[in-house]
Amino acid sequence: MADAPDTHLIETLIDSQTLCNGSFLKARRDMVRLPDGGIASREYIVHPGAVVIIPLLDDQHVLLERQFRYPVGRVMTEFPAGKLDPGEDPLVCAKRELLEETGYTAGQWAHAGALHLAIAYSTEIIHIFFARQMVAGAPQLDKDEFLEVQSMAIDDLLAACRQGDVTDAKTLTCTLWLQNVQSGAWQLDWQ
Amino acid sequence: MADAPDTHLIETLIDSQTLCNGSFLKARRDMVRLPDGGIASREYIVHPGAVVIIPLLDDQHVLLERQFRYPVGRVMTEFPAGKLDPGEDPLVCAKRELLEETGYTAGQWAHAGALHLAIAYSTEIIHIFFARQMVAGAPQLDKDEFLEVQSMAIDDLLAACRQGDVTDAKTLTCTLWLQNVQSGAWQLDWQ
Repeated sequence: MADAPDTHLIETLIDSQTLCNGSFLKARRDMVRLPDGGIASREYIVHPGAVVIIPLLDDQHVLLERQFRYPVGRVMTEFPAGKLDPGEDPLVCAKRELLEETGYTAGQWAHAGALHLAIAYSTEIIHIFFARQMVAGAPQLDKDEFLEVQSMAIDDLLAACRQGDVTDAKTLTCTLWLQNVQSGAWQLDWQ
Repeated sequence: MADAPDTHLIETLIDSQTLCNGSFLKARRDMVRLPDGGIASREYIVHPGAVVIIPLLDDQHVLLERQFRYPVGRVMTEFPAGKLDPGEDPLVCAKRELLEETGYTAGQWAHAGALHLAIAYSTEIIHIFFARQMVAGAPQLDKDEFLEVQSMAIDDLLAACRQGDVTDAKTLTCTLWLQNVQSGAWQLDWQ
């Protein structure tokens, strides 16, 4: 969308340096030229990208996870998700993460769209997939990964979003997709 | 939600240090005790919290912004939003940000809910507000802030979400709220 008519909005790179090189978080600090010729700094997390999966157990139920998320200090209800390995195809990642975290494999997959998670300070894009024809198996969690898998009625998920029991942005975004797919307003291309 | 039955999921702080102290990004690296007694590190952005506003121009139209977001390198279509000042009440912040960025004031406000933006690596919570009875005025942008304000039909916004023209997670979450408020499924408490 950054085409010619938007030159009055676009910022361009002048210089870039490492701001933070954690074992997990990588951040950069760039000097940029503003649309009016001024200069500003932009600090942001460099993220490899991720996937999130909306697993349909049947027409009325989805598979969710409950997981403690340390930065927000609470157990969150969320759709299965995970980071891309270097060079990994998003669909391959989605199949891997679904299996590792929940034990399920899916007979059919549909790519829905993408979301940008924190546009003020992260490069992260999350690719959104639906999965159906689910077959249960054993999760393959990393030794320091702790989560619960649960089935939830879609109506209950919507009520939980309304009541503030589901507050994870990627899961709320997936619920927008789910509601519109379920109503027939939005179509998917199942593979 | 971090109550007693979730002790098999919860991580607890052992030690905390500054990972990154940018002029905009602040990050910490904590050592935590895992549910099984093991130890892991958690790196995350410390964020003051924010607000996002869904401004209803009439029953069929909302006010949106187009703004270049450097971390994702593109002009994004999004609802007005901004960070809380220290100690600022979220509703006060919402009124301030709406005025500064769009020039509008609203006769009525409704608090909808909240979202956690990036639960793997940020403390950020965003408080979601609806605004109506909108009165136009002059924006009061900071000198290094560049954005466009636009009216959009709610149906066009939904189509843009479907087509991938709107990918901002907070805006997609707000669209879930908007769709359910518009349909009458979710009620608001207007003040």
